[in-house]
Amino acid sequence: MQVSGGDLQRLRQQNTLNSLRVLREARAPLTLTELVAQTGLSRASVGDVVAELQQRGWIAEVDPTPGTLGRPAKRYRFRTDVGHVLGIDIGVHKVLAVVTDLAGRVIASGRVAVDRHTARHERLEAVWRAIDAALVAAGRAASDLWGVTAGSTGVVNREGLVTRVHDLPDWAGVELAGHLGQRLPCPITIENDSKLAALAEQRLGVAAGVQDLVYLHVGRRPGAALILNGRLHHGFSGATGEVGLMEVTGWRTMAGHLEGCRAAVGASPEEAARLVFDAARAGDREAQAAVDTYAHHLALGTAAMVLTLDPELVVLGGGFSRSADVLLPALNRALEPHCVRVPDIRPSTLGEECVALGGACLALDDVDERLFSLEGAILDPAAPQGVS
Amino acid sequence: MQVSGGDLQRLRQQNTLNSLRVLREARAPLTLTELVAQTGLSRASVGDVVAELQQRGWIAEVDPTPGTLGRPAKRYRFRTDVGHVLGIDIGVHKVLAVVTDLAGRVIASGRVAVDRHTARHERLEAVWRAIDAALVAAGRAASDLWGVTAGSTGVVNREGLVTRVHDLPDWAGVELAGHLGQRLPCPITIENDSKLAALAEQRLGVAAGVQDLVYLHVGRRPGAALILNGRLHHGFSGATGEVGLMEVTGWRTMAGHLEGCRAAVGASPEEAARLVFDAARAGDREAQAAVDTYAHHLALGTAAMVLTLDPELVVLGGGFSRSADVLLPALNRALEPHCVRVPDIRPSTLGEECVALGGACLALDDVDERLFSLEGAILDPAAPQGVS
Repeated sequence: MQVSGGDLQRLRQQNTLNSLRVLREARAPLTLTELVAQTGLSRASVGDVVAELQQRGWIAEVDPTPGTLGRPAKRYRFRTDVGHVLGIDIGVHKVLAVVTDLAGRVIASGRVAVDRHTARHERLEAVWRAIDAALVAAGRAASDLWGVTAGSTGVVNREGLVTRVHDLPDWAGVELAGHLGQRLPCPITIENDSKLAALAEQRLGVAAGVQDLVYLHVGRRPGAALILNGRLHHGFSGATGEVGLMEVTGWRTMAGHLEGCRAAVGASPEEAARLVFDAARAGDREAQAAVDTYAHHLALGTAAMVLTLDPELVVLGGGFSRSADVLLPALNRALEPHCVRVPDIRPSTLGEECVALGGACLALDDVDERLFSLEGAILDPAAPQGVS
Repeated sequence: MQVSGGDLQRLRQQNTLNSLRVLREARAPLTLTELVAQTGLSRASVGDVVAELQQRGWIAEVDPTPGTLGRPAKRYRFRTDVGHVLGIDIGVHKVLAVVTDLAGRVIASGRVAVDRHTARHERLEAVWRAIDAALVAAGRAASDLWGVTAGSTGVVNREGLVTRVHDLPDWAGVELAGHLGQRLPCPITIENDSKLAALAEQRLGVAAGVQDLVYLHVGRRPGAALILNGRLHHGFSGATGEVGLMEVTGWRTMAGHLEGCRAAVGASPEEAARLVFDAARAGDREAQAAVDTYAHHLALGTAAMVLTLDPELVVLGGGFSRSADVLLPALNRALEPHCVRVPDIRPSTLGEECVALGGACLALDDVDERLFSLEGAILDPAAPQGVS
């Protein structure tokens, strides 16, 4: 069989990209010997590839471990500091922007408080202020960003349009991607906030490595999101995890069982649930009964998803998950009668940065896809953000 | 960068496998020019690859279209006749075995009637008789098979063990793969029957090309299966689509609303539903009300899955789907109040071969995976069944 010059050129580029991907996905720096084993390339080819990648700035040699006897083998790592992405959480009560490196580590963030009465144009201004603050804190310009993902409350369709919102009357239909694109010259994705929270937990949080999970957002407005086969599941119109729309679950009104409790009298709606969980923890019978009723309804919608999908894990996120020590046992008890196997349920560990972090994770997925699907053409680190 | 002899050898094998895959996936025979375009290889390389594949027996030249003016370009197709797989449906009332070619076309089949009182060892004997009949009819030996998948009623776990069965008291725990492996010297997979029916509809039936769908098995014992991102979804323990376990859906008892109808008096349980659907079609008010009540419950479980997953399509399969002209409008009406978007619902088109066909499809997936993941080593058509 003949091999043309073009074929050879393609082979070289493929070897370079494959080596870069192996280094990108490695959990620790790799020696040349390890690279040979993991790429299947010859020692000589790996030497050439590493020299090229180092010269272009994609990888760096790691200092030898101090105290190692003899001459240690050189080790190389992917340089996660050559690029940055931006994750944004546009919520009812806050806008949070985080700048992360290519490992998803937060370099800097900016936060602006808003509320349910903030008008659309004011909320959009708050988004810019949060972004600017995060960029200033990171010492970066908008042109340094390789990708941006913003999470919004409401249903977000395939085209990134917010199609339905319960909490913010003037937010549906907002053209977020177009708006952000005016000043951010890189690929921009819009996604539902619970979906991003689920992704963050799977990449960086309590669900690290789990392939199939249901993320439950428990708060005044409950929601859910799915990770299936390790990836965010969107559904046909972006409306996955909407079991709360079934009257029979009682999801629409279940927070009222907590807010109507004696322990919550006089508290703001935002504070009420926490006070009831506190009272239940302290032994207040009425509060415990309210938590059980709430858990009964939460379990109905959760069981619908668990019985449909048989997931490995359920992650409990959202404001009420801060009282997981009280809520989780009640939810477990309430699920038992419905399920053959109640899956493991764990409270979120990422806290209030969850959605913005998930945005950074999704932006990084997109960066990797662009980097490693260029039909064999390896770019310099200064170039990737221009790739569309 | 250096390119070693081993790298070159690997490149050649990769090119051969990629070309074979392009021909395998093509919907029509391809010319050399089309192969060049679709593989990205040079004309000379494609010429070499095609000669090698033809000589090994993997591809064949297609006779030129009669009536074509001038000298038509040679066209090549993947030879779907070089290998065969076996799909088996082990149901409550029948065992059906089909032998298909590598395109999933049924070459021959064998069928044995059983019933709910057939003991485990008798059912296993019936499986062998159906397999033997299919092989005899196909003019093949067990050693000609490249893969086998058997579908069983009940929950089938990741290891292929039947863990829970409602209809057949002595069937749970049956070691199907080990049993079949005694006489079938090729890879064997065991799967739940509804899951295989869903796969068949997605590959060969009414859901061709749809990426996300819910398959509803409507019959005396309702069930469901999921195709997500184009692949069968198993869940953590194989128990997906089990929404019927929620009391609130009424799935366990809903067939009784049909069987208790006046139109069904005196009929066998297997016949009752059909008589009621017939009466409803003819305008019998009581039968229509019974169908509506049945559809109300069917819709509750269906809504749980639809709201969880937001699928593109729901496929209605199983015995009752033969009365889809009556059932489907009732189900649509009953779903409306629960769903933001009622997905498209279509009745199954594959009929009673559905499960066995799905078995053949899954066996073919496995064959392709073995063929195209051999790290570049292309085998002869006589060899693949030996690969494990």
